[in-house]
Formats: sequence, C-alpha cells, structure tokens
Amino acid sequence: MGPSTRTLKIGIIGFGPFAQFLAKTMIKQGHLLTATSRSDHSGHHGVHFFRDMEEFMELEHDVILICTSILSASEVIKSIPFHRLKKPALFADVLSVKEYPRQLLLQEVPEDSDLVCTHPMFGPESGRDGWRDLTFMYERVRVRDDDLCSSFLTIFECEGCKMLEMSCEEHDRLAAESQFLTHTIGRILSEMEIANTPIDTKGFEKLVQVKETTTRDSFDLYSGLFIHNRFAKQQLKNLESAVKRVKETLEGMIIKGDGPKSDQ
Amino acid sequence: MGPSTRTLKIGIIGFGPFAQFLAKTMIKQGHLLTATSRSDHSGHHGVHFFRDMEEFMELEHDVILICTSILSASEVIKSIPFHRLKKPALFADVLSVKEYPRQLLLQEVPEDSDLVCTHPMFGPESGRDGWRDLTFMYERVRVRDDDLCSSFLTIFECEGCKMLEMSCEEHDRLAAESQFLTHTIGRILSEMEIANTPIDTKGFEKLVQVKETTTRDSFDLYSGLFIHNRFAKQQLKNLESAVKRVKETLEGMIIKGDGPKSDQ
Repeated sequence: MGPSTRTLKIGIIGFGPFAQFLAKTMIKQGHLLTATSRSDHSGHHGVHFFRDMEEFMELEHDVILICTSILSASEVIKSIPFHRLKKPALFADVLSVKEYPRQLLLQEVPEDSDLVCTHPMFGPESGRDGWRDLTFMYERVRVRDDDLCSSFLTIFECEGCKMLEMSCEEHDRLAAESQFLTHTIGRILSEMEIANTPIDTKGFEKLVQVKETTTRDSFDLYSGLFIHNRFAKQQLKNLESAVKRVKETLEGMIIKGDGPKSDQ
Repeated sequence: MGPSTRTLKIGIIGFGPFAQFLAKTMIKQGHLLTATSRSDHSGHHGVHFFRDMEEFMELEHDVILICTSILSASEVIKSIPFHRLKKPALFADVLSVKEYPRQLLLQEVPEDSDLVCTHPMFGPESGRDGWRDLTFMYERVRVRDDDLCSSFLTIFECEGCKMLEMSCEEHDRLAAESQFLTHTIGRILSEMEIANTPIDTKGFEKLVQVKETTTRDSFDLYSGLFIHNRFAKQQLKNLESAVKRVKETLEGMIIKGDGPKSDQ
C-alpha cells in the first residue's frame, strides 16, 4: 500500500498511562518506539526508554509524539533540546485541548519540521477493546511531507477510528461544550457524593456512570481542560446561570402556589 | 394459585398517559377496568370510562387507583365522593412523591378502606418492552385485607418487577437524591441547550440522553417532585454549593498558576 503502511520510528515525550496505551497499538502495528519522560517509565515491553532527552533527540525519529499532561506541556515543550535533531521530523501532540499546544509547538518546533495537532477522543477505558468507530480529531498545522503525515494518521485510520479533520479552534469550542461540561457535571456529582440507591431510575444510573468515569481521570486533566481552553470559562458561566434559572423557576412555582394543572 | 391471581375490579382516578400505560398491562392480565378523569379520556380499548365521579364511586371496585398528577392530587383527592362507596376498597396511588399522597389519603379515605402507597419506578418509555427487572416500590400504609393487597401487588410481581417494600419517608429521601437530582440536571442541560457534537465523548452522550429523557416529562411532574418532596429543597442547595466548590477549585488553580505537575 505504499507510504501509508511504512514502518515509523516514533519517539514519545511524556510516557504516562495514556502514552503507554497508544504505544501498545503502535508496537502491534510494527512501528519502532522510543520514549523519554521526566519520571522513570523504563521496562515497558517493546519501548526503548531514554532518561536523557538529549540522547533521545538524536535518534532520527520520523515522528515525535508529545504526550505530556496539559499542565506540564509548556515546561516540557520549552525544555526539548530541538538543536539535537539530526533531521526534520513530524511533531504531533495528543492533548485534550488544542489551541494551546498548537501555539506552543508553532513557537518552539524548528521551522523545517512538520506539525500535526491531534486529539484521540478515547482512552484506556473506552478504547480497551479496540479503537473501531472512536473519533480521532486532527489538524494538519504545518505539513510539507504529506507521505509522513499520512503514514502517521494511518496508525489510527487502520484501527477503524472515525478520522475527523477539524481546526484546533473549532475543537476547543466544541470540547468546552461537551467534554469540559461532562467533566464539570461529573465533579459536581462527586462533590455531592451521589451513589446508587435501591430506587435508581435509568437516568440516575447514567449520572453515576458519568461521575465515576470523569473522576477516574486526574484533577490535573480537568483543570487543564479549564485553564487552557479559552472557551471553558464561558461554559462554566453558562452552567451557573442555567442552575440559577432552574432554581428561580422552581421557587416561582412555590410562590404561585401548587394549584391544579392537569389530571394525568 | 389462589387469591393472588383473582380478577380485580380496578377503578382508576386520573386517566392520563401514565394511567393508560399501566391499564394496558392490567387489561392484558384479565382485570376489569373502569376510569374517571376531569378531562374526557373515553374510547380506550377495554376501559369503561365514566365522566361522573359519583356514578364511578358506586361501582363496587376492589381497588381504586389514584393516578393524578402530583400538582392536582390534593384537589382531586379532596373532591372524591367517598360517601358513595358501596363497600370498602383498597386505595392505591402511583405518584412519584410518596409522603404527600400518603398524608392526603390517610386524611381523606374512609377508615374501613385499606391503603397502599406505591411508586412504579418506570414509565411508558422505560417499560415499553415489559416491566421485567424494573423497580416497584410500595408501602402497606393500612392493610387489613391482606389477600386483596397481595392480589394488587401481584399485578406487578408477575410481570417481573423488582418488588421493593420501603417507607414513604425513605422513598422521598432517596428519590430527592436520585430522581429529583436527575431531573434537575436534565433541566439545567436543557437550559444550556446542549446538543450532540462531532467530538462527543461517551460521557457527554449520556448527558444528552438524560436531558432528552427528563425533558420529555412535563414540567408539572418536575415541579411536583420539588414542591411535594420535603427533601428536594436540601438537594437543590447541595447542588448549588457543589457547583460553587468546583468553580472555586478551578479559579484557585488559575491563581496558583499552572505550573508543572506530572508528565503523563
């Protein structure tokens, strides 16, 4: 199938659980993986781990994949010794916010290297049984080597992901309305300490699931979704004002009295 | 099987969609159904409809089932011509709050009639394909004719409902924490006009479903859950204060700065 199935040398910066989850499939596909991380994550099958980032950068990777947390992205990206690159590479990130790493990478990555910003809309839990029909969002921010970029995207495409090309700005606007809001509701329900009861409705069972799934993610991820997505603040305001309106409507009912309405 | 499978003469007061939904299964089981309602609901297959409540009350029912809305319960129950009863009956209600109709019925139903308060935790949608494993909560508030009460409960038991005997007070405490909270979240999400996006996470899809299911119910039901469940006000306060705490934590993160945390 030509360039799209070529073996890639992929170097991962930041090797936490999400990076390890992605790496497993990349190894299965036959790509060559190395990783570096501030904490020691050596000993992962099929991944050559480097404590020394200078050494890591000299390895002639085809792709360098940024898998840091949102909160550490700025410090980590600014500390990458780009001058050690022996040849241009494709830089890609997988952060859950997109305008922020796009901006950082445009500032820091050398002009002759390419850049693609991505968000796999799944993780170790939702992607446990494969990635089929799970959404993979990406923006080709600066791509000259089309073959290389296509080869990288093929990793996700050939697993059956729904490939979604979208600007980082549009991603962040929609993610504030959906993912950030979901995490916020989950955190609120967790603050309320909701738990299953013997008289759960189907709807309440869904809320308990939302609480459990979102609080399984770190608070760092949640605060990253808020701090580094410029649309999130407005969404939090919208939520507050919706709570206020619902409360006022209920209180209005009490003042109005509870007279008869219908007899169903 | 003895008394539990006997044919019951059931009279329904308040014949809206939920009563019609329950009636369908009762007819299927071979019970004899009559109904009365302030609006005309005649023409339902297998149900003899009476516009005149005096006439309806003289029909020597075994069971009289109160299916009014929460908001109209007081007015409807107080207007029932109990003096027309030719023999004692079992009075039952199916309202989504329980202490309130329990109190009303204890006040109004003649001393020689029995009383069971129930909440089928399902409706036309969740019970569309049968009632198996759906929860049916009840309190035997005042039962002397055990056979009659058992025969009535058997309607739900033999459809496979999870039968849950629980006090009305306990029901209302738990329902405020689960059902009322779910409706409140649904109304809030509806005020925010959330809608599916191309980058929905599984959790967000659940929230959209909660919004759609809860707003399909009338606002009268929702305000009834609030006004006539004494535990609901506290639950609304808990929600508000949880929103406040989550917001303050997020704002605290901004003040603290977004320094590095971990590199996963």
